[in-house]
Amino acid sequence: MNEHEHEQKERFKDISFINNISSMAVIGVSERRKFFFLRNHQEHFQGELYAIHPKIKSIPNFDDGTQEKIFRTVKDVPGKVDFAFIAVPPTKIIEVIDDCVEKGVKLVSIFTAEFSDAGTEEGRKLEKKLLEHAQNKLRILGPNGMGLYYPKLGIAWRPKFPHTSGRIGFIAQSGGICNIAIYASQELGMSYSKVFSFGNGADLDFVDLLHFLINDSETEIILGYIEGLAKGRGVALQEALANNKKPTIMLKGGKSKMGSVAAKTHTGTLTGKKTMWEVIFRQYGVINVDTIEQLLNTARLIHSYGLFNISNIAILSVSGGYGVVLVDLLAHYGLNIFPFNTEIQKQLDQQFFTLGTSSNNPLDVSAQIYNSESIYNIIDIALSDKNIDGLIMDLPTWYFNMDYHLTKDPNFEPTILKAFSLGHKHNKPLVPIIQRVNCPEDRIRLLRELNERKVPVFGDPFEFVPLLPKISAQYIKMKSR
Amino acid sequence: MNEHEHEQKERFKDISFINNISSMAVIGVSERRKFFFLRNHQEHFQGELYAIHPKIKSIPNFDDGTQEKIFRTVKDVPGKVDFAFIAVPPTKIIEVIDDCVEKGVKLVSIFTAEFSDAGTEEGRKLEKKLLEHAQNKLRILGPNGMGLYYPKLGIAWRPKFPHTSGRIGFIAQSGGICNIAIYASQELGMSYSKVFSFGNGADLDFVDLLHFLINDSETEIILGYIEGLAKGRGVALQEALANNKKPTIMLKGGKSKMGSVAAKTHTGTLTGKKTMWEVIFRQYGVINVDTIEQLLNTARLIHSYGLFNISNIAILSVSGGYGVVLVDLLAHYGLNIFPFNTEIQKQLDQQFFTLGTSSNNPLDVSAQIYNSESIYNIIDIALSDKNIDGLIMDLPTWYFNMDYHLTKDPNFEPTILKAFSLGHKHNKPLVPIIQRVNCPEDRIRLLRELNERKVPVFGDPFEFVPLLPKISAQYIKMKSR
Repeated sequence: MNEHEHEQKERFKDISFINNISSMAVIGVSERRKFFFLRNHQEHFQGELYAIHPKIKSIPNFDDGTQEKIFRTVKDVPGKVDFAFIAVPPTKIIEVIDDCVEKGVKLVSIFTAEFSDAGTEEGRKLEKKLLEHAQNKLRILGPNGMGLYYPKLGIAWRPKFPHTSGRIGFIAQSGGICNIAIYASQELGMSYSKVFSFGNGADLDFVDLLHFLINDSETEIILGYIEGLAKGRGVALQEALANNKKPTIMLKGGKSKMGSVAAKTHTGTLTGKKTMWEVIFRQYGVINVDTIEQLLNTARLIHSYGLFNISNIAILSVSGGYGVVLVDLLAHYGLNIFPFNTEIQKQLDQQFFTLGTSSNNPLDVSAQIYNSESIYNIIDIALSDKNIDGLIMDLPTWYFNMDYHLTKDPNFEPTILKAFSLGHKHNKPLVPIIQRVNCPEDRIRLLRELNERKVPVFGDPFEFVPLLPKISAQYIKMKSR
Repeated sequence: MNEHEHEQKERFKDISFINNISSMAVIGVSERRKFFFLRNHQEHFQGELYAIHPKIKSIPNFDDGTQEKIFRTVKDVPGKVDFAFIAVPPTKIIEVIDDCVEKGVKLVSIFTAEFSDAGTEEGRKLEKKLLEHAQNKLRILGPNGMGLYYPKLGIAWRPKFPHTSGRIGFIAQSGGICNIAIYASQELGMSYSKVFSFGNGADLDFVDLLHFLINDSETEIILGYIEGLAKGRGVALQEALANNKKPTIMLKGGKSKMGSVAAKTHTGTLTGKKTMWEVIFRQYGVINVDTIEQLLNTARLIHSYGLFNISNIAILSVSGGYGVVLVDLLAHYGLNIFPFNTEIQKQLDQQFFTLGTSSNNPLDVSAQIYNSESIYNIIDIALSDKNIDGLIMDLPTWYFNMDYHLTKDPNFEPTILKAFSLGHKHNKPLVPIIQRVNCPEDRIRLLRELNERKVPVFGDPFEFVPLLPKISAQYIKMKSR
């Protein structure tokens, strides 16, 4: 090992072994809590799963009375244990960690709180003692965190977490934010490779996990929620980001003075200067967002179309007024709605045959919307303009409910869905806005169908328009490296 | 009539008679279009409804073969006709208007397009001729507009428009935007007094209709979508607004250079300088928004809580991280998240009994959320702090699905709904964020239940946080007059 490699090893704790976890234990199963964490892992975990408790002898629907999967301590498990989820009282934690070290457990998640997060000297001491007993022989997620969600292996801390595996990795200093992100993913048409909730980050911290995801072959897009870093980890963060080629989106909590006070109460973290974070994010082409919703929506756009550079947009509206408002909003965010080139314009003109429409950009199809074939052709032609980088189309919910159609054309919806998918044909982002108006049940069905087609639908332009220039900026930054 | 009144009369065309419309005709019913506009008005119109067509003798499910409700011209109708919806070809319009004048019709909506909106000299001439033939004896909405939606009387231009009547008036230069606003209202828990889609505004324009709504006893909140005004109407606009005491929210289309080009194509309107509009809106305390979604969301907030002045906010979060992000966002929009006063803090402390919670502002209830009674008490106490102007609470969808609850407490949802309604008890806005995560069906049910309670729910903080300081500014402006 040369010096550089040695230094790297110190900077970034290695957890590449987690891709091969094949056995796990839930330590501190709770009868009162109806074996919550055990049950959640039992839902989908693919390997050997053990329950650890000093007294419990049998768990319904888990060990079938054979007692071959319940042990007093982790040391008593006959086979190996790669990973342990720990939810014991703080007073028991040192003993449990000693057992795990002795057993050769490689990774533990510590759900237990009241360490440095408590803001007491006692809590800080216990956290320090915890690390001493771990002896660098095992890696720790937490304490005060939810640990690891790894759908491919079925590792999941809450009930009904999706068990489909994807290419998005997420690191968060907040278990609650992870829960939102994970439960939201299915309706948003996304899936995760791994999600880490690292809590106090006593051992594995944000930088370690970011470095892991940057190098993880199962991860293509990286999301993060960070409140702050321990002193001296800023250099490592920058080093990790310097080698990053994956689209990366970050939400920084505690940007404001009041927010940083709140963060200190939340995780005991010192959030650092807002500007410092902004500089780092800008320098390394990290997309910097302001809410968890923006974090997920940015991920959806990139998940659907990859990183893209969008400057000139075509708009297709069923309402002239809505089109005008969209132009204003896009212009505000630095995007252009320019005329089509002459040849394309000629082709478009031929597709318009209804009074009250406009074949210029923004396209106003008005009542011609019901001729869905013509809409398909219009979008196809507009996207073939080499100066057009993408297309936004609005279509309120009631168009997807036949009760509102004069002529019940069974081809309407399939053709519109096909038209919405034309972004993929042209390799340019096409983003439909299906306004949340009436018929919410139809909207649910539609979103699910469009998720299958990797078409990201929104209900309000503010959900995604401010994100477009951010994605373009990252595209340019990544390209220049 | 003194001079001032005379001048007023010229400035604002009077349509106060519309509150007493008791008979109407649809002129130009179309068999090919399945009698679309006739059917839509037939759904709920309370008075006498006639169909006018030179040839059609019978309409299924309308006249029962008696032919007593179908006439060749409006002049042939035996009784009076207060209002006519006109959808004849442009070549027939003058003749129809002459008939309406002769018959004594008071108001017509002209759906027909291809007047000044066509951008041709011919179109402009036809529009001028139309006005000459109207002789100021009848008032015109349009041409190129959808006219009047008046749910109390059952006047409605599209199918399944809600027939519940409310206190919100809306004027728009775009029929499509009206459609969105009207179809959205039911799911948003709002109802309209009247909606005007005035198209080209050849006769009745934005200012006339605004003046009407300002003085209309059925209207309490005014919404508007405007692209531009005819030359010389700016003074009248300001005069109307100077006497306005109702909360008023406006969306201006064509703010940007590109948007103003689009608006010219849309309605042939010159949009005027952005700054001029901004100055007028600010001077008269009009809330200036950027999208139709913001227009409706602002209306929802005011509809629920009246105009309010909000500066210091309490946050109640189930996720510490989400709370931190909310603090940052609120701070960005100039709102404060200050500590509670000492007495209130003491009372709050007594309500917290779960590890990992925080009883400071932002309140972090974490797993204590399942004890819904304590949540009710916490909100009740927080809102009783005299320095707190309102409360925001986040609770993702899955909390409203019992499959995700360990203990299936049947009181959970009713108690949380009661807690969400505490804003009304304290006369302070309480805004829940129910993030659109999973369980979308449960969210639909919940939104409907909260609409009944006049509690405006959002799914994303960006939907309403930027609106809060705008509402406060209007409150202060209105108070100072």
